[in-house]
Amino acid sequence: MTALLALDWGTTSLRAARIAADGTVLEERHLGERGILHVEPGGFPAVFAQALAGWDPAPGTRVLACGMVGSRQGWVEAPYCACPAGAPELVRALAWIPEAAPGVRLGLVPGLSTEDADGVPDVLRGEETQVLGALDLLGIDDGLFVLPGTHSKWLTVRSGRITDFATSMTGEVYGLLRHQSILARTLPPDDGPLDAEAFVAGVRRARSAGGLLRSAFGVRALSLFDRLPEAARPSHLSGLVIGEELRVHLAAAGGQSPILVGSPALAERYTLALQALGQGSRSVPAATWRGLWRIARALESTP
Amino acid sequence: MTALLALDWGTTSLRAARIAADGTVLEERHLGERGILHVEPGGFPAVFAQALAGWDPAPGTRVLACGMVGSRQGWVEAPYCACPAGAPELVRALAWIPEAAPGVRLGLVPGLSTEDADGVPDVLRGEETQVLGALDLLGIDDGLFVLPGTHSKWLTVRSGRITDFATSMTGEVYGLLRHQSILARTLPPDDGPLDAEAFVAGVRRARSAGGLLRSAFGVRALSLFDRLPEAARPSHLSGLVIGEELRVHLAAAGGQSPILVGSPALAERYTLALQALGQGSRSVPAATWRGLWRIARALESTP
Repeated sequence: MTALLALDWGTTSLRAARIAADGTVLEERHLGERGILHVEPGGFPAVFAQALAGWDPAPGTRVLACGMVGSRQGWVEAPYCACPAGAPELVRALAWIPEAAPGVRLGLVPGLSTEDADGVPDVLRGEETQVLGALDLLGIDDGLFVLPGTHSKWLTVRSGRITDFATSMTGEVYGLLRHQSILARTLPPDDGPLDAEAFVAGVRRARSAGGLLRSAFGVRALSLFDRLPEAARPSHLSGLVIGEELRVHLAAAGGQSPILVGSPALAERYTLALQALGQGSRSVPAATWRGLWRIARALESTP
Repeated sequence: MTALLALDWGTTSLRAARIAADGTVLEERHLGERGILHVEPGGFPAVFAQALAGWDPAPGTRVLACGMVGSRQGWVEAPYCACPAGAPELVRALAWIPEAAPGVRLGLVPGLSTEDADGVPDVLRGEETQVLGALDLLGIDDGLFVLPGTHSKWLTVRSGRITDFATSMTGEVYGLLRHQSILARTLPPDDGPLDAEAFVAGVRRARSAGGLLRSAFGVRALSLFDRLPEAARPSHLSGLVIGEELRVHLAAAGGQSPILVGSPALAERYTLALQALGQGSRSVPAATWRGLWRIARALESTP
């Protein structure tokens, strides 16, 4: 029997799931291009109804959503919750839409905010739920979690609460350098399969060059002298950019072994990079449904 | 009397000058969009004739050009000359076009190449001439020269020879982050005048954040919380990117005081950044004509 209807509602895509009381995912739907960017003004209730069509929740069924649907550009803003925050803090900060559909109350999971020693803030939205799910899957309460992507997130968890995090614009900067910069002229049109050797050389170079502004130009010079085969150049650049992320965040991590959360392809690449730096790690698949289920459980035990 | 006809022939623009035996610039022409990108196949002789029209060189007049005209995409390739290199080495590596115009022999100044401790090469073309000119203007033979720009160059000179250099993609990465990344959404359409306070805060932040991938996202988070006025955001981002360049290259410079070569606007910005880091510096204007004149003098004394 369905205990939770869960939505992972991001910028570009929307997924929905029926989840049992024990956390089992009973059914999952991908609604494709129904991300918040594709929802017209006033169109959220209609897309919401479409996402849950036929799943008519029984009384008492929880309905929760995480992701950019709770941002300022989303349905209703769920303001950022300050770190440290775990399931109980997220439950208290849920933004409720009392009648998201007739008789259905929808809770939007807030994103998190933090501030570093310089007083510079950082934000995330959606990753908090993935990390709660990963904690649950692994049966742990502490760890350093890495969610690689367009904007990679590094989160520190202590006693089940996310105490701090930091963002690197890794995937986005890779795309800019690869497609929009002078380096694009010497790179092939497609990335092709990963060249592990060129990738690892990039990771190592990132550490010794001391900064990406400098190391990136090496791709051009190596190409000019035919010292990096064309097909290996995207892998080498990927190594430089991911290596730069690791250089910065591992220095702040004080030797903790990272736990990679996300797609197997990215986790594999980061595992390879970490190995090249002599750093162990482990991986866990994206765990959004598990995270929403954990928040729903915390909601049950909230007075 | 003209002793040297000099051309500064880059990717997008072409300038020419008549220079006297004592280095005085007698006349200068800007030919606008006659950079090598705008020259059709086989079109170099016609543009060359246009650049020097009416200056009919007397027998014995030297004609020299520097810049991308000597690249693989230019008129004739002047292969990179390996460091260390000063005027004598550049003279020996000039690529000659025997009949660039009827009776006129044109020498193309080569670019430079180097290789760092990791075995990664670096290249430049045009900056070698500017640095030779700056040495001459300042009457010195040693120094750490910084040529800020799209691709900033840091050159070490010992006894009149460029012994080593390194490139950072500073200007290009600023443009990509400012106009093409997620940060563009929160930045005003125009950069506006420099906000010195926001710029210096960016330079300082670059040092403590440890890497641009991380520090850049701060612009977004500060904007979300209205903690950085919209008009100050381009200056702050500029400080983050220039500060990142300084972080990496000053660490390798071992306390040497940089000499800035180039446009007064950029030199002013770098001077401000260096001051914020407690690092003195001095500036000298772009000195391409002086550099070509110095190479011409070295040519005179070559057997």
